[in-house]
Amino acid sequence: MERALREARLAAERGEVPIGAVIVGPDGAMLAAAGNRTEQDRDPTAHAEMLAIRAAAAKLGAPRLVDCDLYVTLEPCPMCAQAISFARIRRLYWGAADPKGGGIEHGPRIFDQPTCHHKPELYPGLSEGEAGELLRVFFRERR
Amino acid sequence: MERALREARLAAERGEVPIGAVIVGPDGAMLAAAGNRTEQDRDPTAHAEMLAIRAAAAKLGAPRLVDCDLYVTLEPCPMCAQAISFARIRRLYWGAADPKGGGIEHGPRIFDQPTCHHKPELYPGLSEGEAGELLRVFFRERR
Repeated sequence: MERALREARLAAERGEVPIGAVIVGPDGAMLAAAGNRTEQDRDPTAHAEMLAIRAAAAKLGAPRLVDCDLYVTLEPCPMCAQAISFARIRRLYWGAADPKGGGIEHGPRIFDQPTCHHKPELYPGLSEGEAGELLRVFFRERR
Repeated sequence: MERALREARLAAERGEVPIGAVIVGPDGAMLAAAGNRTEQDRDPTAHAEMLAIRAAAAKLGAPRLVDCDLYVTLEPCPMCAQAISFARIRRLYWGAADPKGGGIEHGPRIFDQPTCHHKPELYPGLSEGEAGELLRVFFRERR
């Protein structure tokens, strides 16, 4: 999660919403790390989790990240939650909760849907304080 | 929708689930067209809609596709539905309904969630017969 937080801080420095994600392979080695890049890439799908999933899948040469774990600083949105399910992520760790845009414990609760065919093990609240503080500072400075 | 069906047929020829998508700009000109490429790209996020959104955003140089319309042969999944919302797509036309994996009229019903901040105008059932038949033939041949 330390590395995910670092990616979030780097995203903030680029003017992006500070969210970072890391994917770790079955052997514990880091496969991919990314920060949010929606503005820089001019891509509404360029959330940290999506970029990390795409990079890890490219590295493994497989569309399913079996036995891989994902760390992200904020509760994933519905788009990312569904992508995490498609990618067959084993364990999902996240930092701050997102009542406004989250898709796991809020809104559509993607993993609780009968149409969701893979649900990772969930570990919310990891480094929650630091992850949330990064977001609060970012938005405070922009208002 | 004719062009989206063509992309779906091309996807089937590549061994992909036959789904195609097209994005049309405010002036009625086509901005992007894509078929499903999850296998070819080894990317669990490479659904036709996602690829079309990313290509159109890159073309416009903007993460929001204001006044653009999206045509897709199957009801979008929750990941694509949320991406369509983020991209601010104006009108969404789709072909066949997807009771097992759809995210608009089925499952998490993304656009009906209070956490969904943009809902496009919805036009389901366009060329529904042909779009559904492509999928039925594809899965029948693989069983």
